[in-house]
Amino acid sequence: MNIKGFQFSAVEAAIKKPGRKDLALIFSEVPATACAVFTINRVKAAPVLLSEERIKSGVAQALIVNSGNANACTGDDGLIAARETSLLVAAGLGISDRAVQVSSTGVIGVQMPMDRIRTAIPGLIKGLSSGTLDDVALAIMTTDTFPKMEARSGLAGKSGYTVAGIAKGAGMIMPNMATMLSFVITDAALEPLFLQQAFRLAVDSSFNAITVDGDMSTNDACLILANGKAGNPPIVADTPEAEAFESLLHDVLLSLAKQIVRDAEGGTKFVEVRVNGAKENADAKKIAFSIANSSLVKTAFFGQDANWGRIFAAVGYSGAEVDQSRLSLCFDDVCMASKGIFAGGDAEARGTEVLKKKEFTVTVDLGLGDGSATVYTSDLSHEYVSINADYRT
Amino acid sequence: MNIKGFQFSAVEAAIKKPGRKDLALIFSEVPATACAVFTINRVKAAPVLLSEERIKSGVAQALIVNSGNANACTGDDGLIAARETSLLVAAGLGISDRAVQVSSTGVIGVQMPMDRIRTAIPGLIKGLSSGTLDDVALAIMTTDTFPKMEARSGLAGKSGYTVAGIAKGAGMIMPNMATMLSFVITDAALEPLFLQQAFRLAVDSSFNAITVDGDMSTNDACLILANGKAGNPPIVADTPEAEAFESLLHDVLLSLAKQIVRDAEGGTKFVEVRVNGAKENADAKKIAFSIANSSLVKTAFFGQDANWGRIFAAVGYSGAEVDQSRLSLCFDDVCMASKGIFAGGDAEARGTEVLKKKEFTVTVDLGLGDGSATVYTSDLSHEYVSINADYRT
Repeated sequence: MNIKGFQFSAVEAAIKKPGRKDLALIFSEVPATACAVFTINRVKAAPVLLSEERIKSGVAQALIVNSGNANACTGDDGLIAARETSLLVAAGLGISDRAVQVSSTGVIGVQMPMDRIRTAIPGLIKGLSSGTLDDVALAIMTTDTFPKMEARSGLAGKSGYTVAGIAKGAGMIMPNMATMLSFVITDAALEPLFLQQAFRLAVDSSFNAITVDGDMSTNDACLILANGKAGNPPIVADTPEAEAFESLLHDVLLSLAKQIVRDAEGGTKFVEVRVNGAKENADAKKIAFSIANSSLVKTAFFGQDANWGRIFAAVGYSGAEVDQSRLSLCFDDVCMASKGIFAGGDAEARGTEVLKKKEFTVTVDLGLGDGSATVYTSDLSHEYVSINADYRT
Repeated sequence: MNIKGFQFSAVEAAIKKPGRKDLALIFSEVPATACAVFTINRVKAAPVLLSEERIKSGVAQALIVNSGNANACTGDDGLIAARETSLLVAAGLGISDRAVQVSSTGVIGVQMPMDRIRTAIPGLIKGLSSGTLDDVALAIMTTDTFPKMEARSGLAGKSGYTVAGIAKGAGMIMPNMATMLSFVITDAALEPLFLQQAFRLAVDSSFNAITVDGDMSTNDACLILANGKAGNPPIVADTPEAEAFESLLHDVLLSLAKQIVRDAEGGTKFVEVRVNGAKENADAKKIAFSIANSSLVKTAFFGQDANWGRIFAAVGYSGAEVDQSRLSLCFDDVCMASKGIFAGGDAEARGTEVLKKKEFTVTVDLGLGDGSATVYTSDLSHEYVSINADYRT
């Protein structure tokens, strides 16, 4: 992985338990074309409020992110803390504080330990090196059990470039966005409007297509920085280079999104929910999420119970148009039900075999039109309850 | 409990495990004024389709209900089964089959064992007696751990009358409606339009104000039969008698609804979620359900963790209008947060004490207007996962 013009650093600021890095910095040696997507939760963390305002300029040069404290529901003091953090970073790097993005994840409702942040920032800046994103990926973990990273390389004109991303998230995962942070950097040069459009598309079919528990966070943020250091002529929309970049960006984001679902709190299954034949794509997505968020469906997955009836029930209450006499459902290639009723034969036994696998696909066909959608989710296990009953304590 | 002109019966039809009654009958000696509310799930069980059509007449005289099989996702065969069941009951009782309501609860996607139903119906009819509803309440249980019953008596003119109800439900509980059956009978005489209006109002503030897991069933039904045998002049709207009946009916339904939440699958807590100060009542209800259905909030209740931040997150993603700087939250009388931030002092310790209780109230104030709503829910425990991972097997 070689991403020109970016530097990284991560330190222990003692925001989390001792022995774990919890404060990280990504720095672009030149101002980067930037865009971001944030939570649509109306209770927004202070760093989201700050960063959302700043990203409107379309430019950013640094990101400081901490885990262990979400700086959410912290009022004016929280905003002052986020702003001070960005000022300290800006001063240390000799850049404008408006080019500094701030991101936080962790417990809600507790003020940031600013004394520790102040103490840690000089070391954080001193530690910058053009090494890898690995330490940053580690430092943003909360209940994650592994760091989430992906990188792909492409060619624009004669210049090779790389898109690399990291993400964190395991619970409070629901699109628009999830309790999820993801930071993507590329040394490709990109026309700003094209970047924005490509980024939103890629987010929609990746991070906005996963759910763990249906809970939407106060802190979600997904940011991309493109610093142009690869030296290519800026990629513009509707060119072969644009298409290649879009596909590559989509791959990176989808890989990160799937890693989040694979690391779902307490998850023992990785389930792809495909909905076809809906009246329109929006209906298909509604149905896919209705299935993927159903506690009863998710506990059946955990119990390896081929309970297709619960899935039909979730289809029915999704709010989308449904004709129950046209519904069909498969687990992988085993057809469990068609025309709304049980397929008969040995479907039960064969479906149960599919559900014993660690990864499988649920395909629902509505038989009404061409609308389709795919969503990724996990099951609901004892371990999920344990993790979330004990998270703060 | 003395409800004139009603007879009851329940038998073992071997639809469920041996040793448990699973087929029951409620019979009114005269045609009763009737109305009902059914699931709005677009995947509807056969008996729902049949009963919904029939109740339009405003008259019913008998209800046959089974547990162990939902007769849902069973296609045309399912409809034929429901219709045959009602015909057998009608023939046995000497009434029109259009006056027979049919209801089912249990596993989805399995055809009804009609041979056993046919065998059982003569005994079921022979067993009718003017005893009590107890046996019927027992026969409709699935994962319920106790039968749910309530009765209240009132006076209309010089005639005493009684409203008695039973219900079942413990999981797949989400309003409009829940996997929930409830049957209410009264010997009061009621003007049909008034009954309909009073019934819908009472359902809205009781069964439509509870949630266990946010899953909406294919089979929900709530039916009331009023046979007028008390001999009172029919109660009409906007009279003192109407007001008294409304209040009494509401009490019966709310008691049954709360019993369902108290029997929530795996539930260890009974939580009343009150939302005040919303822009309008609809907003308040949206927020209350967003809190009550959040897996993260429910696991925090189970963990006895005074994690008010998760509740604020659920408020924020409810879709209702929210100003985070005006939010406040109390556990019983302990104020945990006001103006959007932690209340400080010993709130954490005192809030944790509240959450150790088996029953408590969460009150959220939006500070935006006069809208309010109350919803009842349970926590999300290991036991919920166990019950639903193993339900069919």
